[in-house]
Amino acid sequence: MQAIIKARPEVGLELADVPRPVPGPRDVLVRVSKTGICGTDRHIYEWDAWSAGRIKPPLVTGHEFVGIVEDTGVAVRSVRPGDRVSGEGHIGCGYCYACRTGQTHICENVDILGVDITGCFAPYVVLPESNIWKVDPAIPDDQACLFDPFGNAMHTVMAQPISGRQVLVVGCGTIGLMAVGILRVGGANLVIAVEPNPKKRELAKVMGADIVLERVDAKTIKDATDRGGADVVLEMSGHPGAIVKAFDCVRNAGDIALLGIPPGEVSITWAEQIIFKGLTLRGINGRRMFQTWYQCDRFFRQHPTLIEPLITHRLPFDEFEKGIKAMQDGSACKVVLDWTDAKT
Amino acid sequence: MQAIIKARPEVGLELADVPRPVPGPRDVLVRVSKTGICGTDRHIYEWDAWSAGRIKPPLVTGHEFVGIVEDTGVAVRSVRPGDRVSGEGHIGCGYCYACRTGQTHICENVDILGVDITGCFAPYVVLPESNIWKVDPAIPDDQACLFDPFGNAMHTVMAQPISGRQVLVVGCGTIGLMAVGILRVGGANLVIAVEPNPKKRELAKVMGADIVLERVDAKTIKDATDRGGADVVLEMSGHPGAIVKAFDCVRNAGDIALLGIPPGEVSITWAEQIIFKGLTLRGINGRRMFQTWYQCDRFFRQHPTLIEPLITHRLPFDEFEKGIKAMQDGSACKVVLDWTDAKT
Amino acid sequence: MQAIIKARPEVGLELADVPRPVPGPRDVLVRVSKTGICGTDRHIYEWDAWSAGRIKPPLVTGHEFVGIVEDTGVAVRSVRPGDRVSGEGHIGCGYCYACRTGQTHICENVDILGVDITGCFAPYVVLPESNIWKVDPAIPDDQACLFDPFGNAMHTVMAQPISGRQVLVVGCGTIGLMAVGILRVGGANLVIAVEPNPKKRELAKVMGADIVLERVDAKTIKDATDRGGADVVLEMSGHPGAIVKAFDCVRNAGDIALLGIPPGEVSITWAEQIIFKGLTLRGINGRRMFQTWYQCDRFFRQHPTLIEPLITHRLPFDEFEKGIKAMQDGSACKVVLDWTDAKT
Amino acid sequence: MQAIIKARPEVGLELADVPRPVPGPRDVLVRVSKTGICGTDRHIYEWDAWSAGRIKPPLVTGHEFVGIVEDTGVAVRSVRPGDRVSGEGHIGCGYCYACRTGQTHICENVDILGVDITGCFAPYVVLPESNIWKVDPAIPDDQACLFDPFGNAMHTVMAQPISGRQVLVVGCGTIGLMAVGILRVGGANLVIAVEPNPKKRELAKVMGADIVLERVDAKTIKDATDRGGADVVLEMSGHPGAIVKAFDCVRNAGDIALLGIPPGEVSITWAEQIIFKGLTLRGINGRRMFQTWYQCDRFFRQHPTLIEPLITHRLPFDEFEKGIKAMQDGSACKVVLDWTDAKT
Repeated sequence: MQAIIKARPEVGLELADVPRPVPGPRDVLVRVSKTGICGTDRHIYEWDAWSAGRIKPPLVTGHEFVGIVEDTGVAVRSVRPGDRVSGEGHIGCGYCYACRTGQTHICENVDILGVDITGCFAPYVVLPESNIWKVDPAIPDDQACLFDPFGNAMHTVMAQPISGRQVLVVGCGTIGLMAVGILRVGGANLVIAVEPNPKKRELAKVMGADIVLERVDAKTIKDATDRGGADVVLEMSGHPGAIVKAFDCVRNAGDIALLGIPPGEVSITWAEQIIFKGLTLRGINGRRMFQTWYQCDRFFRQHPTLIEPLITHRLPFDEFEKGIKAMQDGSACKVVLDWTDAKT
Repeated sequence: MQAIIKARPEVGLELADVPRPVPGPRDVLVRVSKTGICGTDRHIYEWDAWSAGRIKPPLVTGHEFVGIVEDTGVAVRSVRPGDRVSGEGHIGCGYCYACRTGQTHICENVDILGVDITGCFAPYVVLPESNIWKVDPAIPDDQACLFDPFGNAMHTVMAQPISGRQVLVVGCGTIGLMAVGILRVGGANLVIAVEPNPKKRELAKVMGADIVLERVDAKTIKDATDRGGADVVLEMSGHPGAIVKAFDCVRNAGDIALLGIPPGEVSITWAEQIIFKGLTLRGINGRRMFQTWYQCDRFFRQHPTLIEPLITHRLPFDEFEKGIKAMQDGSACKVVLDWTDAKT
Repeated sequence: MQAIIKARPEVGLELADVPRPVPGPRDVLVRVSKTGICGTDRHIYEWDAWSAGRIKPPLVTGHEFVGIVEDTGVAVRSVRPGDRVSGEGHIGCGYCYACRTGQTHICENVDILGVDITGCFAPYVVLPESNIWKVDPAIPDDQACLFDPFGNAMHTVMAQPISGRQVLVVGCGTIGLMAVGILRVGGANLVIAVEPNPKKRELAKVMGADIVLERVDAKTIKDATDRGGADVVLEMSGHPGAIVKAFDCVRNAGDIALLGIPPGEVSITWAEQIIFKGLTLRGINGRRMFQTWYQCDRFFRQHPTLIEPLITHRLPFDEFEKGIKAMQDGSACKVVLDWTDAKT
Repeated sequence: MQAIIKARPEVGLELADVPRPVPGPRDVLVRVSKTGICGTDRHIYEWDAWSAGRIKPPLVTGHEFVGIVEDTGVAVRSVRPGDRVSGEGHIGCGYCYACRTGQTHICENVDILGVDITGCFAPYVVLPESNIWKVDPAIPDDQACLFDPFGNAMHTVMAQPISGRQVLVVGCGTIGLMAVGILRVGGANLVIAVEPNPKKRELAKVMGADIVLERVDAKTIKDATDRGGADVVLEMSGHPGAIVKAFDCVRNAGDIALLGIPPGEVSITWAEQIIFKGLTLRGINGRRMFQTWYQCDRFFRQHPTLIEPLITHRLPFDEFEKGIKAMQDGSACKVVLDWTDAKT
């Protein structure tokens, strides 16, 4: 079958013929309909330092998908051929402390789809049954292939209470924009979004932000909030400069959820910026399995077009490079690939 | 009356005659019996950058005390002359969001005894009734004057569950050592203490640490704990190098409580050290008013000699400088001053 | 001045002349503009068993109000004459464990306005400064006099997470209806309301309930929810029969918040209905001081007409009996009295 | 092989020959060394109403065990023959909401070992790999076969914070006594135990209770605690009369954990006993999988003889009836059976 692979340890991705994966007794084989391109896929394309240290070519990439069950292993009980499914790309070991205490999302031996193991940028993908998620009929394919990034946003938002609270979202890439939408329908009192890219600032308004700023401007944010600062900051930029400033925008005893991945170290004045303020910080990784998926399912069903504006590009699978270029030049938010016509 | 004051913006503290404070209608006048010298007092003595920016001489210093109520304002109802009391040195404004939601310890307009307002290094001190704490008869004076630092330790320990958990205490100054003691009788499964000063390492053993290390050695700590890292880290050193290493000693999904005050910025690799691990960090300031005091009261009553080994120096008030020198050369842990013979 | 008083230990309330209250040094005197009639006032009118055991006539009744500060004691700092205010009617002792740990709403020595001490059904009322709440200009008087019942609803809703959750509200009296409104704008995924009174069922739809039922019908509720039961039940009926059935409508590991006051004992099968399901139950009393007030303030400002449909009767103060009759015959939801023309 | 079975729907258990169970691909076959007799086994023996409604004879009974892995299915990776293991007797379906969100202990389709499926009162037992727990060498067999009841106690204790708190344990059967021991070494400030059986009251003292009472006497308990009531009540009696009284022994805003199974309904005055006090109640079922197991493992290792005094009877397997009789007449606490000599 055709697949988008990282063939060699260098910049780029390419279409190639690879063998169709074969499900084991506890696995599910899925005929992929749509996939989303993640920022991680772009990093792999660009072969940055992180990719070079982690990826072992050749590798089929991709981890955001929706499709139809084609076949199941003999021990599979919860889905059958014809079911429409997506899936969690973090495959826990099942044996470590995290896995045995309901925290598989931080399994110490995790394998990630399209990063550590064969991914979903192909007409077929295999996942363990325990990672499969049945998709509700009310959720269209274009959005159902985005459970993974939407789940990152959901996990970050739900890491602290939000009903009636004033929230600052730092960084409006796709996940930050999804968070804005979740906050809006999820009962936040005030949503302030910060993003340098003007197109994405425009999308932040569309998603329901009350105030949209180009930069983290502590004075403006403090003036806009009730207690001289946001109750909650969702850090989704991974930009060290923005992070440092964001700590000045949260009130005493506030919450900060950290999802954005800074490229190196972050240096802040802990005494004034964390300790004296009595803040709580939470590092957020992946999606809670499967609390976050249940939450996403409900939000999607209740608001079936919530993230529709974020899908800026719909392309056939073999134009994936056009999608990555659009992500690189800032013109794309979410790019969805269609695998209908791929050679199987 | 005699008092230990910061007379001028320069190094040193001195004994001087000052007027006896007069209680307002909601205040309590206390005849001070014993006081503790805090690291903060030493900073004020040394006139470091923080002191120079905050203290307005002349000022009576000191905030750790026990004494006997001498007089009360007309509106005071809960104590009367003859009662033995200590008191919370953080005086909240009573009107801000923190004060009106049970979080006075992070009041945005706080006045601190002996820092912003006239302190307790004198035979008499005045506090609002709402800051006064009646001392149980079972608690001897030498320990009752230490509710404030013991409360810092208690607040830090109690910021997350500890029963049955494996805890790393980084930094065994007086408060770190108190935390070791609280953890031991409070049900921790394993207590690892780190401290470069050999005398304080010895005290850490006395207080009940299972393992005492000179430096934050991630390998040793990971080997000693069940899940490749402590469940909880209590950061009480304020030492940037130790802090960075401490983050490598906590397991995924662990808790870090930050009490130690680093002198400037702290730079760490947020992705690997916080985000991917799914950690929770909490900045700890002061004592919860008055949950922490109730907790301290019970621990003191249940274990009346728990912190006795930490009182290394008992001096008459006019030998305070000897106490500060002993703190500076590392020979002292806690220094307690006796105010019996002070000129009133 | 004129006031609505319980003059004798028997059915009824009456208008009478009483002395204008005089503020102490820490008190605030308020010229009352509007008051709400609470179900508690109706109980006092009807002189039920609870009233007969608690109220000591003669007593000025009433505890829901908004007005203008007329005068302040000498020690008052946060408000001044001309400020528009409401106030918390639970006056804590300030000295018990609850009061000293941020839980004044369950003070063991509480005095309640219009129940234990002189109330607000009069042109003037006195409250301690610490119980006064400044009202935002965006909130009209008719709603500002309802902070107290709206706060009961808010406290109950906010006792557990609600964003994205499916919630059953049992009992749509005024407070239940307010809870429906808070849930709707506060991010609940599904709101099911149960109420026998058809007018109030109609109001439940107006407030935003997705499903409105006449009775607690476990089958219908289980079918309407995702996991065979609501995530959260808010018990606001105080009706023993409804309570018992409500326990069958919550999913395993769900939350139940109990606000409605049953007249006597409630008998349920604890094993099947609580223990095996792993439920969490929370008794809710009053309003958290002042977290709940801050939350109400935000909801009122964000949705200034949210509870407007619930005010079914606006009467001059001297027609209070007409209001109580309308509450008794089920035709009224909230009755607001105007005190403009009362003799002062 | 020999096994203790419920052969027919009537009183009694008997030894019989049954086929040795065969492990499936994901199962583990264990050679049983020791088993504990649970109160549930006694109920099955006595064929009470619950048993008659749930058990389908013929059935091999028993669910508390330790043994040595004899064989494993082909898909098993975490244990191998020769490993010493115990196991969790609640076998979740793996597909329901509870199972997919880390709450398998309240799986809606649970199968319980020795209740719904073939149990461990036999020389061999089969469990899914995911239910197997490797036993630390430091824990002797006699205690390792008691992870299940000890886990009930641990789950109940750990459902709320206990360090420094005053706790009332109502009912000192085996699990209540284990809870007393966990509270003692887990950092509780005061442990009050209530139990009518004088032998068990004696054991409560041995386990470390500070105060041991014959009945729930609210006055004595309020006088013994700091705030007019315990911070926490652990209800382990299942006795309706004791439950009702226990609610009068907890302070405002306290916590009640409910483990004991009352035979029918429990009737209490919700207003005064739950709502006005602002209590939190938690229904406790089974053991958290596997947080509770990790906690038990640490307590056992740290205190290897903690529950030793509770094992009052050690019998060969074929004297099981003597054990049940001793449980019935109140002379036994825990009965451990030895399966070494059983016919395999």
